[in-house]
Amino acid sequence: MEWSLHPQLAADTTPIGDLALARVLLANDANYPWLILVPRRPGLIELIDLEPNEQVQLLGEIDAAARALKAVTECEKLNIAALGNIVAQLHVHVVARRHSDVAWPKPVWGVCPPIAYNPTVRDGLVGALRRGLQFNKSSG
Amino acid sequence: MEWSLHPQLAADTTPIGDLALARVLLANDANYPWLILVPRRPGLIELIDLEPNEQVQLLGEIDAAARALKAVTECEKLNIAALGNIVAQLHVHVVARRHSDVAWPKPVWGVCPPIAYNPTVRDGLVGALRRGLQFNKSSG
Repeated sequence: MEWSLHPQLAADTTPIGDLALARVLLANDANYPWLILVPRRPGLIELIDLEPNEQVQLLGEIDAAARALKAVTECEKLNIAALGNIVAQLHVHVVARRHSDVAWPKPVWGVCPPIAYNPTVRDGLVGALRRGLQFNKSSG
Repeated sequence: MEWSLHPQLAADTTPIGDLALARVLLANDANYPWLILVPRRPGLIELIDLEPNEQVQLLGEIDAAARALKAVTECEKLNIAALGNIVAQLHVHVVARRHSDVAWPKPVWGVCPPIAYNPTVRDGLVGALRRGLQFNKSSG
């Protein structure tokens, strides 16, 4: 079985690039800078479905994504979560939060309808995150 | 600086025991079997504040807690998250979800007021989780 990105995740995000294990996506929601990491292994639902060495690999990629997101956005808090109640394919949210954002201090899920990015703002954010994650220009 | 459990986390939970790095707590909310892991290191706020080797240690403990919780509750989904928007001290939620629970498919935070456990039910759950996490009777 080959891995493919769940269509709902594809529809709701903009690709940033592929790390060794996970695809890194930007959620199409200008309310919060919000990354989603999806391990490119078929059939995964829970974090505990991953082999231990791949769990550690994913953790390293979550750490890298969180550091890049924090550096680019200068956010005040990170929210990191694997939920999967609606889209079962294993994916990890890494969200940059501010005390002034529309959902603070609640978690972001389901609180406010997504806002479309201004394309220039989105492209600038994607570019900065690619540099932060040390993707070259051809990746993603 | 010595580590101590944040008073709000202490007030909202029942202790289960200490793993090598994290204290394991049961949230006092009978809506969902819900563990909280708190690394016993002072001053931590973000997951990325942990040294890499301690991140890996915590991941192993999250995996063990999630497996024990799933085995004991036979839940349909696990939700794992580090948020910390209200209580800043680094803590990781591991929540057993069912399609029939009061918040499904939403995340659990802030959806429904907590329900107190029947003490017998709570003690049975704590005992089963201690056995699942291979704590001996004197721990916790």
